[in-house]
Amino acid sequence: MKQSLGAKTLICPTPTWVVGSYDEQGKANAATVAWSGICCSDPPCVAVSLRKATYTYGNLVARRAFTLNVPSQRQVKQADYLGLVSGRDIDKFAAAGLTAVRSDLVDAPIVGEFAMALECRVVHVHELGLHTQFVGQILDVKVDPEILAESGMPDMSKLLPILFSPGEQRYYGVGTPIGSAFDVGKA
Amino acid sequence: MKQSLGAKTLICPTPTWVVGSYDEQGKANAATVAWSGICCSDPPCVAVSLRKATYTYGNLVARRAFTLNVPSQRQVKQADYLGLVSGRDIDKFAAAGLTAVRSDLVDAPIVGEFAMALECRVVHVHELGLHTQFVGQILDVKVDPEILAESGMPDMSKLLPILFSPGEQRYYGVGTPIGSAFDVGKA
Repeated sequence: MKQSLGAKTLICPTPTWVVGSYDEQGKANAATVAWSGICCSDPPCVAVSLRKATYTYGNLVARRAFTLNVPSQRQVKQADYLGLVSGRDIDKFAAAGLTAVRSDLVDAPIVGEFAMALECRVVHVHELGLHTQFVGQILDVKVDPEILAESGMPDMSKLLPILFSPGEQRYYGVGTPIGSAFDVGKA
Repeated sequence: MKQSLGAKTLICPTPTWVVGSYDEQGKANAATVAWSGICCSDPPCVAVSLRKATYTYGNLVARRAFTLNVPSQRQVKQADYLGLVSGRDIDKFAAAGLTAVRSDLVDAPIVGEFAMALECRVVHVHELGLHTQFVGQILDVKVDPEILAESGMPDMSKLLPILFSPGEQRYYGVGTPIGSAFDVGKA
């Protein structure tokens, strides 16, 4: 018999990604998000939800661009820090010891030390309530070569992204491979 | 120096969740999705993207409701199977040995054997391209008591959801806890 937990944003896993943006003065900002996910294959798009109160919200409205960066579990302290403070008050890149690398495709900075970055142009903005959803068209995916598999595709066991468990407010690492997609279910 | 992989839906991790819906005749269907994520805290909402060609797409348009169910890594074969075949051709619940439990809140079935289910009412539909994004307001979260932590919240190390790595087309399990959110970054 299942138990009711109420109308809450409880589901696992959610990602731990970092949105890179510029403010009106050109200062780079980086903010951690979990309310995000791929939302279209063609054109390739990813959705990121932000509260209007955040500094990143204003940056995305003004610049119509962002990057979505994937920290590894070795960078969990930096990833958490980037969700704790506001870019309104501080230069988060400098405080976290991170490098803002200007994207050559979109008006937003890449986090140099994180191994994967999606460069996105805002194509839709959806008002949902407390959060506004920004749909970004993915113009390119940039990765450190070290995280690629022999196939040339990103290897999750090398990237080692961080999982967020909303109910527990806890981060987890990635475990072991458990099967090939579109294959293991044929049995 | 980062390497360019092109305009692709490559990011890790994406989830492996199963959408429950009814067709016009009342037949329950279950379909695996990875293009999904929480998108608003208040009202609590989750976004699920579907291609128009899928059977589930028509069901959500007609019924304006769905469930989002979380299989565990022990159920990876069933989860993969539910993404391989169409409910147009087959009774996927029966074929996978799963039980469709009618939700008492929304017009959609819960997957009885999966430990977590979100019951959702469609509140927005966004045309994005190949995929249509359905935003579902979460009316309740139902869980098997076994996956709860002492806090009463879902424990990801008990739920053991499946991660999907799009580039590799491979599933991964969840690893170990690596820190408390909104805490580990204070250092």
